[in-house]
Amino acid sequence: MQQLEELKTILGTVADLNSAVAVLSWDQETYMPEGGAEARAAQLATLTRLSHETFTSARVGELLAFLEAQDLGDPDGFVASLVRVTRRDYDRATKLPAEFVQEQALAQNAAHHAWIRARAESNFELFRPHLERMFELARRQADLLGYEEHPYDALLDQYEPGARVAEVRRIFADLRDQTLPLVKAIAARGDATDYSVLTRYFNVDRQREFALKVAGALGLQPQFSRLDVSAHPFQTTFDHDDVRITTRFDPHFFPAALFGVWHETGHAMYEHGVDPELARTPLAAGASLGVHESQSRMLENLVCRSRAFWQGYFGEFQAMFPEALERVDLESFYRAINRVEPSLIRVEADEVTYNFHIMLRFELELALLEGSLEVKDLPAAWNAKMQDYLGITPASDAEGVLQDIHWSAGLIGYFPTYSLGNLLSVQLLEAARRALPDLDAHIAAGQFAPLMTWLRENVHRHGRKLLPRQITERATGEALTARYYVDYLWRKFGEIYGVSREPAVSAD
Amino acid sequence: MQQLEELKTILGTVADLNSAVAVLSWDQETYMPEGGAEARAAQLATLTRLSHETFTSARVGELLAFLEAQDLGDPDGFVASLVRVTRRDYDRATKLPAEFVQEQALAQNAAHHAWIRARAESNFELFRPHLERMFELARRQADLLGYEEHPYDALLDQYEPGARVAEVRRIFADLRDQTLPLVKAIAARGDATDYSVLTRYFNVDRQREFALKVAGALGLQPQFSRLDVSAHPFQTTFDHDDVRITTRFDPHFFPAALFGVWHETGHAMYEHGVDPELARTPLAAGASLGVHESQSRMLENLVCRSRAFWQGYFGEFQAMFPEALERVDLESFYRAINRVEPSLIRVEADEVTYNFHIMLRFELELALLEGSLEVKDLPAAWNAKMQDYLGITPASDAEGVLQDIHWSAGLIGYFPTYSLGNLLSVQLLEAARRALPDLDAHIAAGQFAPLMTWLRENVHRHGRKLLPRQITERATGEALTARYYVDYLWRKFGEIYGVSREPAVSAD
Repeated sequence: MQQLEELKTILGTVADLNSAVAVLSWDQETYMPEGGAEARAAQLATLTRLSHETFTSARVGELLAFLEAQDLGDPDGFVASLVRVTRRDYDRATKLPAEFVQEQALAQNAAHHAWIRARAESNFELFRPHLERMFELARRQADLLGYEEHPYDALLDQYEPGARVAEVRRIFADLRDQTLPLVKAIAARGDATDYSVLTRYFNVDRQREFALKVAGALGLQPQFSRLDVSAHPFQTTFDHDDVRITTRFDPHFFPAALFGVWHETGHAMYEHGVDPELARTPLAAGASLGVHESQSRMLENLVCRSRAFWQGYFGEFQAMFPEALERVDLESFYRAINRVEPSLIRVEADEVTYNFHIMLRFELELALLEGSLEVKDLPAAWNAKMQDYLGITPASDAEGVLQDIHWSAGLIGYFPTYSLGNLLSVQLLEAARRALPDLDAHIAAGQFAPLMTWLRENVHRHGRKLLPRQITERATGEALTARYYVDYLWRKFGEIYGVSREPAVSAD
Repeated sequence: MQQLEELKTILGTVADLNSAVAVLSWDQETYMPEGGAEARAAQLATLTRLSHETFTSARVGELLAFLEAQDLGDPDGFVASLVRVTRRDYDRATKLPAEFVQEQALAQNAAHHAWIRARAESNFELFRPHLERMFELARRQADLLGYEEHPYDALLDQYEPGARVAEVRRIFADLRDQTLPLVKAIAARGDATDYSVLTRYFNVDRQREFALKVAGALGLQPQFSRLDVSAHPFQTTFDHDDVRITTRFDPHFFPAALFGVWHETGHAMYEHGVDPELARTPLAAGASLGVHESQSRMLENLVCRSRAFWQGYFGEFQAMFPEALERVDLESFYRAINRVEPSLIRVEADEVTYNFHIMLRFELELALLEGSLEVKDLPAAWNAKMQDYLGITPASDAEGVLQDIHWSAGLIGYFPTYSLGNLLSVQLLEAARRALPDLDAHIAAGQFAPLMTWLRENVHRHGRKLLPRQITERATGEALTARYYVDYLWRKFGEIYGVSREPAVSAD
């Protein structure tokens, strides 16, 4: 069909512009001299504008309308998926008037600068009016995008297509109710583990070597990827055969780079595994932030913080860092890298407490959006929830409500995807385990190909053709649930900390 | 004026697209994994097409026509210069029909691949039909662009605006006649210098450190620049405050990286010195390839291969490489890095013989374009001229007629700019010396600011506002001439090799 070819040509131009934006952004975070910042902002604004103008042109709407009237065959096929997903993106992109987008961009820019200062001075009041504005704009954005049940649905749908607040509330309630006892039980126990290994000196070049060796075993090859250094680690995609990751190295805290690299490797392998047939179309990316996070957290936590993994790698790791690991055995190392401790900063949280940071943010976002909480009361509400969930209170707003960049960038409805990804990671791994009964033995032998092949087949290759819900149900046989994650946490950390899920009733 | 603002907005978009092309190309040569090549080609093609379409739109023509009817004030001012230079670029860009440009691109692509194979196999016949096609297309391009005297003028003008073949012929004739005796005189002398220092081991990290230290003293600061590694060294500009250079390091041939970095520093300082007022317009770049080369060759050769420079730096250099330089004194080092020897490869040639490589190419290009030479006879003509000028003959076409990439990329009329740059470098330096009588003392003291300030004032800041001819005449008080360069070569190399310009008549 001539119309299909024309649509693909336009979408190819958009994809190329978006890839160029990605390259310029990557360079900005990795290599750009500071002097380049002002011009780079102009270059990125121009490319983003051209991409948006090209994608939202009336011609794309005409071509979609024509194609939607044809028989496009199998709904899972390339053509039907392309038209369906392009329509979803097109409607979303055209529902927001240019004036609104510009107003939002200006407000975000101001909010971002205010947030940087507010955090540096730990002064919430500097950020408060900007945050009020962000939530006001979010409410208007939700109205413009439209929703059936809850305005938050419109926001969430941008990051997790098809997800709804009612479902997230239900899943998070299960998660909270069934893992809060674990947090309390671990906190109640004395912990005699020696964690000093985590802060010993690990040569940065050898950290890089080991991190990349494992990443290579996980499938990340230099033919289609590279690792660079940036202040904030990220993964970015210029093509399925050019996926890049970044990390930061701390000679006195090796977990940052090691688990960080393996986390980003999960993202990169997802992007690399998307069917090449989808290249230069809107289908060529991960299905959602949540599904993406399931891949990164699976490698970071489920694989690379597992006992099986270190049964395979600890000897080699020890040989590379003989001084730091001289009197450390596998078991104490395993416990150290799996330390559970309520802490203030989300990005440093362990597997057990991490989701409470997310649930806290989700609940506060909802309350702010619904109007049941005012921004001026946010710091107090934040601190109260931290006390409820984790039993700790930030000494300052910099360590509390001001710690994340997201709200200053207008990213409201984004946080839940982190926990959805965590839940999905275990649900997927359990499905993989059913298909691959020797999975733990493979992992202990450093053989990750069976798992990665299963993930490519069941998750990666589909790109954005399937919704997160479809990927979940087809790959695991059921809808997303907290059950697998809850079981995993109790099993793994119950064993490490010697606590059991149903505490025996005291007999006195 | 509203029309001026509209033109500047369009030109800003074009500039941003061109900068994005530069970033993507830089990444391609420095960091891109091999898997990214295919997608990168598509991205570059899309950005280049969008830049061309935006710049050649009918609206730009209308705005230019409107503005040209206004009083634009001082011809050297921003507005008049912007309109004048944009008109020049616009006419050139719109004179070539899209079909011709596409035909040329396809032919160049085929020629490039044929050239790679032909050079690898040293088989000119593989390249011959493609080179015939390149010259046929060049003749058609000259006709489309238009010219007054000679079709070569139309080609040359793309790289050296305002330059004409008649003038270049005259200048090159002077250069040839007055420096060929120097080549012959040096070749006739026995040379007892020990050149082994050039191929001793120099640690690559320390090469980088020293190269960057000097580059920093020349003005290149990490706030607005960086150095990376690529197979073929180059300089590229993303903004006047983001100018980047690349080099390649050879532990057994330090001059490649050292003089290479200082060469690229000359290019980078030119781009960095362009008046920031010209940013995001067609005026924000060097005036021509020749003027650009004058800046790179001035730092590489006139400054960094001078005795004064090494009087200042040799002690430090020796301290950084004590083993390689243990028994080397300043004078023998100075002679080693200024070795003159007829050789086959242009990019490895010394200051005395380099321009003969250029003159040879210029003369052959003219003969091929005029039809007085056929492509099939080119290898023989090449080898004959090499024998005439430098007294050597390539053992194979790979070391001869096939050595340069330029013709395979359709770059005909480009080579003369290298020698025009060499000539201008000395003419400019002599003018700077008249204004800065202590120049050599400054250089010996590692103080380059007076020279760089003079260059910024007289060359850099103008960007493309002035033609090369205007820059030359205003900065030096006269038109471009071979005289200063000829005098420089005889003075410097006559002293090193003990030959004098007017050999005494033998008295026997």
